[in-house]
Amino acid sequence: MTKDTNEKRYYFDWAASAPAAYSVDCQTIPFGNPSSLHSEGRAAKNALEDARQRCAVILNVPADTLYFTSGGTESNSIVMLSALMRKGQGRIVSSLAEHSSVREGMETLEKMGKLTGSIAVDSAGRVTSESFSKTLEKYGDVRFALVMAVNNETGAITDIPALRDIAKKQKTPVHFHCDLVQAVGKIPVDITVLDIDSASISAHKFGGPRGIGLLYLRRPPAQGGLEIFYRGGGQEKGVKGGTENIFGAAAMADCLEKFVNAKTVQENYKNAKIRWNKLIDSLAAMERCTIIPKERCSNDEMFSPYILQAAFKDIPGEVMARALDDLGFAVSTGSACSSSSPERPVLIAMGVEEKLRIEGIRISQGWSTTDEEIDNILEGISEVLKFL
Amino acid sequence: MTKDTNEKRYYFDWAASAPAAYSVDCQTIPFGNPSSLHSEGRAAKNALEDARQRCAVILNVPADTLYFTSGGTESNSIVMLSALMRKGQGRIVSSLAEHSSVREGMETLEKMGKLTGSIAVDSAGRVTSESFSKTLEKYGDVRFALVMAVNNETGAITDIPALRDIAKKQKTPVHFHCDLVQAVGKIPVDITVLDIDSASISAHKFGGPRGIGLLYLRRPPAQGGLEIFYRGGGQEKGVKGGTENIFGAAAMADCLEKFVNAKTVQENYKNAKIRWNKLIDSLAAMERCTIIPKERCSNDEMFSPYILQAAFKDIPGEVMARALDDLGFAVSTGSACSSSSPERPVLIAMGVEEKLRIEGIRISQGWSTTDEEIDNILEGISEVLKFL
Repeated sequence: MTKDTNEKRYYFDWAASAPAAYSVDCQTIPFGNPSSLHSEGRAAKNALEDARQRCAVILNVPADTLYFTSGGTESNSIVMLSALMRKGQGRIVSSLAEHSSVREGMETLEKMGKLTGSIAVDSAGRVTSESFSKTLEKYGDVRFALVMAVNNETGAITDIPALRDIAKKQKTPVHFHCDLVQAVGKIPVDITVLDIDSASISAHKFGGPRGIGLLYLRRPPAQGGLEIFYRGGGQEKGVKGGTENIFGAAAMADCLEKFVNAKTVQENYKNAKIRWNKLIDSLAAMERCTIIPKERCSNDEMFSPYILQAAFKDIPGEVMARALDDLGFAVSTGSACSSSSPERPVLIAMGVEEKLRIEGIRISQGWSTTDEEIDNILEGISEVLKFL
Repeated sequence: MTKDTNEKRYYFDWAASAPAAYSVDCQTIPFGNPSSLHSEGRAAKNALEDARQRCAVILNVPADTLYFTSGGTESNSIVMLSALMRKGQGRIVSSLAEHSSVREGMETLEKMGKLTGSIAVDSAGRVTSESFSKTLEKYGDVRFALVMAVNNETGAITDIPALRDIAKKQKTPVHFHCDLVQAVGKIPVDITVLDIDSASISAHKFGGPRGIGLLYLRRPPAQGGLEIFYRGGGQEKGVKGGTENIFGAAAMADCLEKFVNAKTVQENYKNAKIRWNKLIDSLAAMERCTIIPKERCSNDEMFSPYILQAAFKDIPGEVMARALDDLGFAVSTGSACSSSSPERPVLIAMGVEEKLRIEGIRISQGWSTTDEEIDNILEGISEVLKFL
């Protein structure tokens, strides 16, 4: 394998963004403003509601619980900032493994004088029932909890139904929000079965365009649900202002139908697992490789078979990522959204020692990753290890 | 002119949204995450920065003063909500003619305990120097002022440089924000000449896609500019979080180059004026028509030749809009973003009497509107007036 500017590329950063896979022609989308009452406006409104209905069918929720947003970050922010409108001093807590959009949101809430708190994660980056119960007990005034379903650094899957059951047993209701960004289209997810109060979804993680996502709200804001902090022009029933992005909505619906239907997810999951088992077993057999967390084995059902964190002895993650990039492999060091920060807050929360944190890289695959590509990246890593 | 389901459509609601006019294939946009450091990420980052540079050239500002947002509503909200991070109790004021995204933002700020205030508008919906000075004087503690350049209901153009000069003469600095959504691509605009502190731009008003806009910030937040309320994942230097919408940015740059370059704007403006003069003169000659404001004449340089508000005696605006829609003409009653509200707050602020408010419709054209279409809508209106 020699370096060549025309070399084939091997994309292993699906957790940052998936290759575009929608078949919607942006030029054919109705151009009217869905808020307008004329024929062009009604056509646009119909296209928007059609997209919502199609998303709802795949996600197995009523269409009127889905709100189009500009993406996962905004979906998270709408839920978090609603805490500012709540009367009384209920506390908002989030796990220490959340996406940076949640971390920044918590800082905003703190600056605004809201009571906040953290939920500790285990060595895999997962919130355990014990940790969640302990957090609720410790503060005694938690009204909002934010926990992601799949850790975007390690792939660890949190047992959301177990946490939600704990939340439900509290004397005063706890709004349970789940960031599903790394879950939807990867692991089997049924929002109705999860029985959560709200959820965030980002289209570009499963082949849709940038700038579009979904917020699921079990209860409509108008009927005693979250009070929305900023309504903008009142679109999306006041949940997300601004002229609606119909192309984005239609393209997201298209990808949901193609890649997020239960059958396809199951099938892709099965194949992803076979590929990931091979990758994990092969890497674990390399002398200089440490899987993070160390206890992760192949075939572990409590990890997503789409994400892997691994460290290579004496090679800083950034050096490894660059060396692999030169050989044609795209991997990342940490979540893309935190890549500008040298810190690895999620790994710190997991108790990963500093040396391993510096050495960690994230490898993530998608539904179209092939067995051959797994062989290739293993070969690529071996190549790098020879020289570094 | 008979009603026919296959009839030709005449679009006169450009102020709500322009027909898509970008020539960017969304499938060819780099799919990497611009925050990722590998080759795919760098390609995405380059595409994003290329789009920013192209926008900057057209708008005549340094590229690093432009931040991509999800649209005009979000651009406005980023500026407004930054007031929440400001130490001290400086007041934020906005004109009574602002877009609903600003109106809702002011309500949010009020609920959060910020001092707010209103700037009265004249009968055209314009902020005069007198009104602005009076507002600053009355409160004495204004630190933020939001004034739109072109009123989206009447097309009235506010003399922004005059107001900005007044703001600059204050003892304590006043951040001057200008909503340019109805100005860019319509009337000649040079942000550098306007010498304002921040501005909002929405792509879909000049042929770009939904879900993308620009925020201009003269001073970077990191260098003593606005303190950003919610940073999300830290993208766009912390001004707007979330994975960047590169397709949107590239398509917006494309439309800016095609339709917002100074020469094209001048040319389109000249032709739009000729068409609008004809429309205004012809409507003014109709016995049952009242132009709003009544003093608006054709050829008035202080109105945008792209927007017209008019009322027809004894015909509620909604009825008129529906009747015209049936004949193939898309016009609106008020701003699309407020169409769900029966109130016309901007017209109220202008002092328009109730009967005229109810009867008001907004007719708005674009660069591709033809002389023939003006004849057609005049004919259409005459037709409706015969029967209603």
